[in-house]
Amino acid sequence: MNNFVFYSPTEFVFGKDAEVMVGKLVKKYGAKKVLVLYGGGSVVKSGLLTRVEDSLTSEKVVYLSLGGVQPNPIDTKVYEGIDLCRKEKVDFILAIGGGSVIDTAKAIALGVPYQGNFWDFYNKGIKIESALKVATVLTIPAAGSEGSGNTVITKEEGSVKLGTGSPLLRPVFSVMNPLLTYTLPPFQTACGIADMMAHVMERYFSNTEGVEISNRLSEAVLLTIIKEAPVVMAEPINYDARANIMWAGTMAHNGTCGVGREEDWSTHFMEHELSALYNVTHGAGLAVMFPAWMTYLADFNPDMLAQYAVRVWGVPDGADKKTVALKGVEALKKFFSSIGLPVSFKELGAKEEDIDELVKRLHGHKGETIGSFKKLTKEDTRKIYQLAV
Amino acid sequence: MNNFVFYSPTEFVFGKDAEVMVGKLVKKYGAKKVLVLYGGGSVVKSGLLTRVEDSLTSEKVVYLSLGGVQPNPIDTKVYEGIDLCRKEKVDFILAIGGGSVIDTAKAIALGVPYQGNFWDFYNKGIKIESALKVATVLTIPAAGSEGSGNTVITKEEGSVKLGTGSPLLRPVFSVMNPLLTYTLPPFQTACGIADMMAHVMERYFSNTEGVEISNRLSEAVLLTIIKEAPVVMAEPINYDARANIMWAGTMAHNGTCGVGREEDWSTHFMEHELSALYNVTHGAGLAVMFPAWMTYLADFNPDMLAQYAVRVWGVPDGADKKTVALKGVEALKKFFSSIGLPVSFKELGAKEEDIDELVKRLHGHKGETIGSFKKLTKEDTRKIYQLAV
Repeated sequence: MNNFVFYSPTEFVFGKDAEVMVGKLVKKYGAKKVLVLYGGGSVVKSGLLTRVEDSLTSEKVVYLSLGGVQPNPIDTKVYEGIDLCRKEKVDFILAIGGGSVIDTAKAIALGVPYQGNFWDFYNKGIKIESALKVATVLTIPAAGSEGSGNTVITKEEGSVKLGTGSPLLRPVFSVMNPLLTYTLPPFQTACGIADMMAHVMERYFSNTEGVEISNRLSEAVLLTIIKEAPVVMAEPINYDARANIMWAGTMAHNGTCGVGREEDWSTHFMEHELSALYNVTHGAGLAVMFPAWMTYLADFNPDMLAQYAVRVWGVPDGADKKTVALKGVEALKKFFSSIGLPVSFKELGAKEEDIDELVKRLHGHKGETIGSFKKLTKEDTRKIYQLAV
Repeated sequence: MNNFVFYSPTEFVFGKDAEVMVGKLVKKYGAKKVLVLYGGGSVVKSGLLTRVEDSLTSEKVVYLSLGGVQPNPIDTKVYEGIDLCRKEKVDFILAIGGGSVIDTAKAIALGVPYQGNFWDFYNKGIKIESALKVATVLTIPAAGSEGSGNTVITKEEGSVKLGTGSPLLRPVFSVMNPLLTYTLPPFQTACGIADMMAHVMERYFSNTEGVEISNRLSEAVLLTIIKEAPVVMAEPINYDARANIMWAGTMAHNGTCGVGREEDWSTHFMEHELSALYNVTHGAGLAVMFPAWMTYLADFNPDMLAQYAVRVWGVPDGADKKTVALKGVEALKKFFSSIGLPVSFKELGAKEEDIDELVKRLHGHKGETIGSFKKLTKEDTRKIYQLAV
């Protein structure tokens, strides 16, 4: 086991009607003036925005609101938010939405006190020393951003997805009401499921030895998702299934599953190029790329892949670990298909002839090799994209 | 799934030589004057106390030290600590040790700013509104106190164990170096293992439906302990086994395993009477009481007990759930015996003729019924103690 720091200070307030607590929570965490940030129409139409604003008003919290954050959020909205917060002397950002809104809130939070361009944190590796406080009302369980210190923004010029992170960006509180997820369209629900599974699997596949605790915790989250996903797809208003999926999404990405091990993240990097190039949903791209990555890696470390197949998918163990491993990959593909996700370039709408461009962009952003489970060269990533066709 | 708040803000700094970080961490969390609290000779003899004090000195942190906290800690040391902290204007308590030292630190922390007797929080249910900051250097993984807001102290007069808790008592940081646990005697290691398993099982056995995520996380922690315990007993200086056990102990009690479910805790309450009456080690008492409690409850909810037997102990499932359940209980008893723990009154040194007194004290402290999985009356608890004979 490697040395690690585990720090997940967010106060998670989870359950029915949890959003009525927002006003009290914002006060508890010392907000003076709040920016309420949200995306499109559903937060407005459902009455959620009004309920949150009423909760702030009833606690006499001063706030202003900014909507219009897009999926795969872009930098123009970040600049707009930074300008507004500076002008209005905002000290606290409350994001209502999913990963896109929360990640935009974090970008604004770190950009406000910084003199330079906020992109410096994403592409120059400058350390984050200061940020406004961020909190969330989560409506789309997927990105795990409600419990993480990470943010991913798309640089509109050049369609580049870039990420950064800091403990300072972990939300001080996150309000999570599974009822708010009832109206998520089936495809978006499925994409969220793929995203949270990917967050676990990027941590699970590791060469670090002696990490049974994080192996088992990772498997626990995956087993829960695999059990509850078909329920939630069949019965979108099943409270317990929605609740289990929602909390699994948080556990997948707040660090619990990664303690003491080297993480990989190469599949995320490969997918980021797909969603930047085709504007496809991140979770759909992950459903295409993860089985391809696993198939390629089954030659490299069949034992680890076989352990996954046996413990997570119930594949019978056997002497030929690669065969066991590939059965696990098949089970994952079948699962993704069963919840309506694409598992190939063709189904996703990506093109084989773009592979050269994808590889070029990927290594242009990430360097000669990506990942750690196996350090993937251009030759490797080209083959993995090819396996996804 | 029930509504819940999950809040585990402690910064866990885990790994080899992590204690050299103490000075920097204490400064980061704003300590002005620190009380270093510890127990007996091993912290001194091993040089750990000196290393921690050196780390404080090198960061120019002002501190004073107080030793002599006993296992099953008593109130006299709490009073001594409170007086010292008030006199010296201490604002931060650093506990070096296991649950006894940490729980004493928490009692001192809440007693210092309180005008009345600190026992008011333990036996009058007064809400904790203020406390000094607490941090830990953990040397005995078991109690989970390094990641919890709970504290249990023995009232010397009358030998009563009482507990209280508050988010304010959660340590701001906990330094966890598995190397520090190498020298734990085998019996103490085994008692710690029983204690952490009990922390999970008190949460696991619940009537709350629709909590697959916390079912699976609980099973993950138990499976890890069951795999690593025999290794750690056979090879006390196996780093990875010690590390897995140490982190499992934290995950068992920081709330992760209990989200969204009603918890039970009746076995802990029954055991507290044993350790108060006989001064036996808490974990040893739990190893005696948990199988007895499970045996009794197998009639009440055989499905839940059978799920535990199948998923945790690999018992083959079957139509007769009670039989499956009881095989799980047998597996647990066999496991406890295999690591050198008592599984009966006789092995523990408790006496059958004291059962009336144990029941009387138990319900005197806890009321007519205890627990929630099944609300246990005097009649029930008497039968459970009898099953433990």
